[in-house]
Formats: sequence, structure tokens, C-alpha cells
Amino acid sequence: MSRLLKTTIATGLLLAFGAGVAYAQVKPEHLLKYRQGVMRAVAFQFGPLTGVAKGEAQWGPAMAQKAVNLAALSVIAGDVFSPASKDLANSDAKPEIWVKPDDFKMKMVAFQTEAAKLAEFAKADDLEKVMAQVNAVGKACGACHDDFRVKR
Amino acid sequence: MSRLLKTTIATGLLLAFGAGVAYAQVKPEHLLKYRQGVMRAVAFQFGPLTGVAKGEAQWGPAMAQKAVNLAALSVIAGDVFSPASKDLANSDAKPEIWVKPDDFKMKMVAFQTEAAKLAEFAKADDLEKVMAQVNAVGKACGACHDDFRVKR
Repeated sequence: MSRLLKTTIATGLLLAFGAGVAYAQVKPEHLLKYRQGVMRAVAFQFGPLTGVAKGEAQWGPAMAQKAVNLAALSVIAGDVFSPASKDLANSDAKPEIWVKPDDFKMKMVAFQTEAAKLAEFAKADDLEKVMAQVNAVGKACGACHDDFRVKR
Repeated sequence: MSRLLKTTIATGLLLAFGAGVAYAQVKPEHLLKYRQGVMRAVAFQFGPLTGVAKGEAQWGPAMAQKAVNLAALSVIAGDVFSPASKDLANSDAKPEIWVKPDDFKMKMVAFQTEAAKLAEFAKADDLEKVMAQVNAVGKACGACHDDFRVKR
């Protein structure tokens, strides 16, 4: 058995994908953990960046990398609210996501767009623009959460 | 109260980061969910790509995007095994990660390097190289899991 195949089996989840099956055939709890994991990873990048915007955390290459990570994660975030995942239990995702998919998509794209801009400013090491853009990203996060996430 | 601040509070976790605190002050269960979420997101990108390598899944722009996502996630994966997270319960991470940090880092960098190459081949739409490189990434995954992940 090849090393790759052994790895694939060890990882469990991968086998289902390896056969080219759709998300609909993936276990619901895996879909939920994927979604929540990606959104948590978003928070783990964005959180420190809000500290920069407030002048409470230091700017530098490690922080700039978080902005780059955030932009990549925003793209992945667009993948984690598939229709196959609309009925997951223990989720803060409102059903409105799948009732108003165009509105949801518009807000997701706004997040991706603002995050991409933030990554560009970060790569250019432009702290002033980074600080303003962190606020723009935060507004995009909030606009989507207001409509599509259960209040906590 | 600003919209950003409200968003930050709503997201809970972010506030701690906003104040510029270190991972050591983040709740252990959040650190664990971050780590597992990122590694699951890795699997959700890599799984379908193994299908491509086996000729069982179709190549195309959506699949190429998964390779790009995977490279970004490999960078983030380097962030999720911080020393602050070494004593988390319910984790498959072996203590060897923090006992042999140089060996672990070497294997993590190998994964990042192979994933970055895969993303380049994917962006160049070079299916033959993509198929071979998926195997190289799989070997890098397996080499690290063999030494540093609890067998399941």
C-alpha cells in the first residue's frame, strides 16, 4: 500500500473525498467542524489585527502574515456554508443563509474583498492603511453576522 | 459603541486578542478548536486533490483553488502547535512535538514547501505535475503524522 494511501486512510475523512464524492456524502459533524474551524481560524487572525487597529498590539511581519492568512481564509469561508451543510445541529448559522443566498453571498464577497485589501496594505507594510482597513473588515464581518448568525 | 467593537465583543474570543495578549491567555479549548479546525480545513482541501491524483476526481478551477487554499492553510498550520497549546486534552498531538521542536518544525516546513509547489503547479494548470505533487504532499503529511500524531 502506498504511503499516500496509508496517510489518506489514517486521516479518515479524506477517503470519502478521495473517491471524488460531494459534500453531501460527508458526515454532518465533519462539515460543522470544518465550518466552525475555518471561522475560528478567521477570528484567530483577525483578533490580533483589531489590537493593531486600536494601537494595543504591535505591527510587524508576523502580524502582516495574519492579514495574508485572513484573506486566504476568507476565500475558504465562502466554501463552508454549502447547501449540504444547511441543517447542521449546534450551529449558529441562521437558516436565512440558504433562504437568501444572494444576500448572503453579497456579504461574503464584501468580507473577501475587504480582507484582500487588508492583505495588500499589510504586504505593503502601510500601517496607516492597515489600521483603517481593519475597521472596514470588521464592518463586513458585523454586517454578515447581524443578518446571518444567531446572536450570542 | 463602534460597529467594529460590537462585532469584536460578539465574537468573544477576539476581545482577548484585541488587547494584544498572547496565546497563553486564550482558553485551552479555543486553542484546541483552532488547531483541529485548521487541520480539518487542510483535510477538506487535500482530500479532493487525492481524488485528482488517483484519476477519480475532475481537475478544474475549483480544484486548483483547493491547492491554493491548502498552501495558505499549511502556513497557518505552522501557527497552531504553539508551546502554549502543548497540554491540551483530547488532542491527537503527541508530546514529541514540543520535545523535539526542531524535528517537528523541519517536517512542518517540508509540508509547507510541498504544498506551496502544489499551488504553483495548480495555478499553472499543469495537471501532470499536480498529480505527482499531490503524492509529494501526502508523503510530507504522513512523515509528520507518523512521528507526531497519535495513531487512530
